Amino acid sequence: MLLILEGCRCHHTSTMTVELALPPVSGPIPTPFNGNTVLLLTMDTASEVENDSKLSVMYYGKKTEVLGKAVVHLTAFEISLDVDADRDGQVERNNPNKGSWMWGPNGHGAILLVNCDSEHTCRKSLDSEHAEVTRVSDLKDMSPMVLRTSGPAKLPEGYKLTMHISQGDAECVRVFRTRSTAAENLFYKSFVKDYPLVVGGEDLSKEVPCLWGNAEMNFYVEGLRFPDKDFEGLISINLSMLEPSSQGFPETPIFTDRVVFRVAPWIMTPNTLDPVEVFVCSTTDNDQFLKRMRRLVENSGCKLKICPEDMNRGDRWMQDFPYDVLLGQDFGYVTRTAYGKEVSSLDSFGNLEVSPPVTVNGKNYPLGRIIIGVAFPTATEGRNMTKVVQDFLWAQKVQEPIALFSDWLLVGHVDEFMTFVPAPDKKGFRLLLASPDASYKLFRGLQNGGHGQAKMFDAEEITVDEILSDEKLKAENNYVQSCIDWNRDVLKRELGLDDDDIIDLPILFRVMENRAVAYYPDMVNMIVLGKNLGIPKPFGPKVDGRCALEAEMTSLMGGLGLSCTYIDDFASYHKLLGEVHCGSNVRREPFSFKWWNLEM
Amino acid sequence: MLLILEGCRCHHTSTMTVELALPPVSGPIPTPFNGNTVLLLTMDTASEVENDSKLSVMYYGKKTEVLGKAVVHLTAFEISLDVDADRDGQVERNNPNKGSWMWGPNGHGAILLVNCDSEHTCRKSLDSEHAEVTRVSDLKDMSPMVLRTSGPAKLPEGYKLTMHISQGDAECVRVFRTRSTAAENLFYKSFVKDYPLVVGGEDLSKEVPCLWGNAEMNFYVEGLRFPDKDFEGLISINLSMLEPSSQGFPETPIFTDRVVFRVAPWIMTPNTLDPVEVFVCSTTDNDQFLKRMRRLVENSGCKLKICPEDMNRGDRWMQDFPYDVLLGQDFGYVTRTAYGKEVSSLDSFGNLEVSPPVTVNGKNYPLGRIIIGVAFPTATEGRNMTKVVQDFLWAQKVQEPIALFSDWLLVGHVDEFMTFVPAPDKKGFRLLLASPDASYKLFRGLQNGGHGQAKMFDAEEITVDEILSDEKLKAENNYVQSCIDWNRDVLKRELGLDDDDIIDLPILFRVMENRAVAYYPDMVNMIVLGKNLGIPKPFGPKVDGRCALEAEMTSLMGGLGLSCTYIDDFASYHKLLGEVHCGSNVRREPFSFKWWNLEM
Repeated sequence: MLLILEGCRCHHTSTMTVELALPPVSGPIPTPFNGNTVLLLTMDTASEVENDSKLSVMYYGKKTEVLGKAVVHLTAFEISLDVDADRDGQVERNNPNKGSWMWGPNGHGAILLVNCDSEHTCRKSLDSEHAEVTRVSDLKDMSPMVLRTSGPAKLPEGYKLTMHISQGDAECVRVFRTRSTAAENLFYKSFVKDYPLVVGGEDLSKEVPCLWGNAEMNFYVEGLRFPDKDFEGLISINLSMLEPSSQGFPETPIFTDRVVFRVAPWIMTPNTLDPVEVFVCSTTDNDQFLKRMRRLVENSGCKLKICPEDMNRGDRWMQDFPYDVLLGQDFGYVTRTAYGKEVSSLDSFGNLEVSPPVTVNGKNYPLGRIIIGVAFPTATEGRNMTKVVQDFLWAQKVQEPIALFSDWLLVGHVDEFMTFVPAPDKKGFRLLLASPDASYKLFRGLQNGGHGQAKMFDAEEITVDEILSDEKLKAENNYVQSCIDWNRDVLKRELGLDDDDIIDLPILFRVMENRAVAYYPDMVNMIVLGKNLGIPKPFGPKVDGRCALEAEMTSLMGGLGLSCTYIDDFASYHKLLGEVHCGSNVRREPFSFKWWNLEM
Repeated sequence: MLLILEGCRCHHTSTMTVELALPPVSGPIPTPFNGNTVLLLTMDTASEVENDSKLSVMYYGKKTEVLGKAVVHLTAFEISLDVDADRDGQVERNNPNKGSWMWGPNGHGAILLVNCDSEHTCRKSLDSEHAEVTRVSDLKDMSPMVLRTSGPAKLPEGYKLTMHISQGDAECVRVFRTRSTAAENLFYKSFVKDYPLVVGGEDLSKEVPCLWGNAEMNFYVEGLRFPDKDFEGLISINLSMLEPSSQGFPETPIFTDRVVFRVAPWIMTPNTLDPVEVFVCSTTDNDQFLKRMRRLVENSGCKLKICPEDMNRGDRWMQDFPYDVLLGQDFGYVTRTAYGKEVSSLDSFGNLEVSPPVTVNGKNYPLGRIIIGVAFPTATEGRNMTKVVQDFLWAQKVQEPIALFSDWLLVGHVDEFMTFVPAPDKKGFRLLLASPDASYKLFRGLQNGGHGQAKMFDAEEITVDEILSDEKLKAENNYVQSCIDWNRDVLKRELGLDDDDIIDLPILFRVMENRAVAYYPDMVNMIVLGKNLGIPKPFGPKVDGRCALEAEMTSLMGGLGLSCTYIDDFASYHKLLGEVHCGSNVRREPFSFKWWNLEM
């Protein structure tokens, strides 16, 4: 018998919507419809039990006799892998932007921290070095991610959910989960197994044993690497439902949900941010220094942490020594190793500073700009900050670095000729620059004022007249001034500064084998604690019992409402080619500006 | 005698402006001014001869007696390293934005090409492989840069100009210059020396022997590397004036000018762009194929270039064979080597396609998006496109890639299941997808229409009925359809497509050892030449003497105003697991949209 199909009629449960897909006509489905019609079935809510939704199509012949009937049973599961894509601290449900990342106040995308602190107080190491969660407090350093499911109490036979990440991302992220079932709870007793590793490291893909029927499963996402030259900072985490295939074919994905995180960059804090804690090293010879520092720090209302000698192994340069003893909860570090490459004095972190927030030709840098020192590029044999560190700094992006010329200094650090102090007016800060010219002007003024015989360095017998008549010193400082002037131009251009944003401090240098060191304690190498400055005591010529250099400095800073404390670091730091700044470090309040609100 | 300074007066030539710098008071300088005043001297135009500008300051005592006089002689040189920072084809003078780079129609910054073509017709190699300019025509592949100077006829004794680049940039760029002096012209006879290398490669820094007195010196900047994982694409070129120092100190920079270029990314051209030239290989067995292709190409109004057998060494897969024989003026290539890494069939370039321009959730991709195929990430042992190639593709940024799942295919190329054709409506194109479902629908229609005994493959005796009753074939194609469906979802999401932007083509596959190959010639693997499509002749079942697959295909494409030519590639390509697309390549008109106008 030849059946002549004349038309079809369909019926369906109210749990689904049925529309015409082809031909694309809007409105209700014509009845009867013909055999070439394509129907689009939609289910807006999850099923309560398997196969609870049904579509039946009746096929009619010319005389409306029933030729046949087709029935489709449907089960809808709802799956959403969720993150805090709108950055409000809550993991919202199925944000449409969760699979991409955009900078700026109108941007979107979840945030991830590098877990580089340590929850432990003894036998410490970075939490990120361990592929397990050993303390509940560590979960706070991770980003929450939630798998929300609804539907029947279990998936149909053979179906499964799998979380998966790319090989590249696997070295940058780990995902842990909570235990999901009573069986798992019974099986594992130890704490570690309360938060099994899902993906990360060698594990690129793993089945997720989730509960169904309106369940939520919590995941904890841990960042392992800061952005770097080979890692932009974006990480994707995928969740796929796999369908079993007949006849031994591989399972195929029928649905994939994806979320994207950006790892928070490494951010420096400029001198204009409030200090919280000051770090210095204790050595056999710096008692007096520590005493003065303690008073300064107490006056500034922050804490002092002294790194004892057995920990610092005799190294007093606190700028380079913030780790191991300081590692702890919410206090981490990052290191870069220049495998097989030469490192130099320029790799010390007195050569790594950051400006206050600036606006340059209309471009905002609300987190300031990182400042490093390198060889002047025309030099054929200069020292440079090693490439892996430079690459790391540039890769953070949010504090776009500026490279200054610091190789003209023997030690070679930018903190030997510049710093920033807060100011109540203009751009909210001043750039302080070491200035031999300012020093000569001051000394000539002393000479003209009849103080040519005033003596420097207390005990040593060097007079103002002698300094001014030393032609070699003058030539050396002309050279130094030309080096600083070039940097001054770069800083003006790259930070958008005017001349009155800059204050020249009277500092002289000596040049040995073509490289410069400060002649007397280098006042620009100071510690800045709010309105209190800890300044290397310069031991300048005394006029009426008062050091003329201190007087000048105090006057210049007083105009900004800043108070100067002069700290004698002559024997314990200056003679070893460093000063107060090199010998201390400051933890500051973080920026209130959120880095993800940057317009990039 | 003690001199009491009462005040100063200054006089200066009209070639300079003198203002008060400190105290910062605007307006004319008070007369007399006191000794603490800082004067700011400005010269707006270059000097004509050395020391032609003069400032003299007279120092007066209480009774207006002259105590002394200071005279400063000044010489102003104007130096500007210039590029086409406003992208209008002209090297403008001293653009304030020349030292930075910004995307977008309101952006700025100069452009650089990678010189990866060859100006030579024999013994060809990439021009970028040679650190010299051997043909004048090669200069057109480089970006112009001009050093504009004015001032006296020569620099003061000991001063010099130096061009310098960073070590990182040195492997990405070369700068050549024109000969500047008659002496140089006399000395060098050969052409190469007409354009000496200034910086690039081992040469990070070199003195520039420029003429002074309103001179221009032309430089030619050659890009050597496309953007990549370790190279964002930005290059800085610096020019510094160095001042001699007394007493053997190093020279110091007193002025640095800097320009920034971005290397043009590598850009793919989608099927919607007009074809210019078609490439195919000649082999011992593809005469008929070539004949049909020649006719199609002529009808489409473009050129055919046949790569002869001695050149293609028997390789007919033109998608992978565009170089050496094709290298020439304005026709270059780029390669990536996966040192020590495994490569697979997914590294062939049938697995590298590009979409037409799309807009996805408000984000514009005016150059479309690159499409590659990889293993499905839950697979533990999948084949992937090798990492160096993936890294390269992502680094171009302007056609942000999409990774599809193609490892389910034996050959593993995205062009086995998808392509794009131009369309007069909607988004200006349709995505064509291979569809076993569409094929089964067509075959069932034939059976229902009484053509169950129609035979496929001409000579071979396979009927429509036999195909429909082959349960194994059905299971295999169910698996294939689920793989394609997953990709369909990804393409809809990543290209912002609706269902009616997609056309399903009736194509069946077979699965061998869990991987699929086309059962009959894979019609989606076509060549698109404007409105003309060159489609693998499918050898489907004949109804009334006409192939039902061709009829369906012609009907589907006819609705878009596209004309189908069916090319027999059965023996020469299909049986070797490729089709028309794999065996051809097309050079297309470039986008009219300029990549630097992208909003990033």
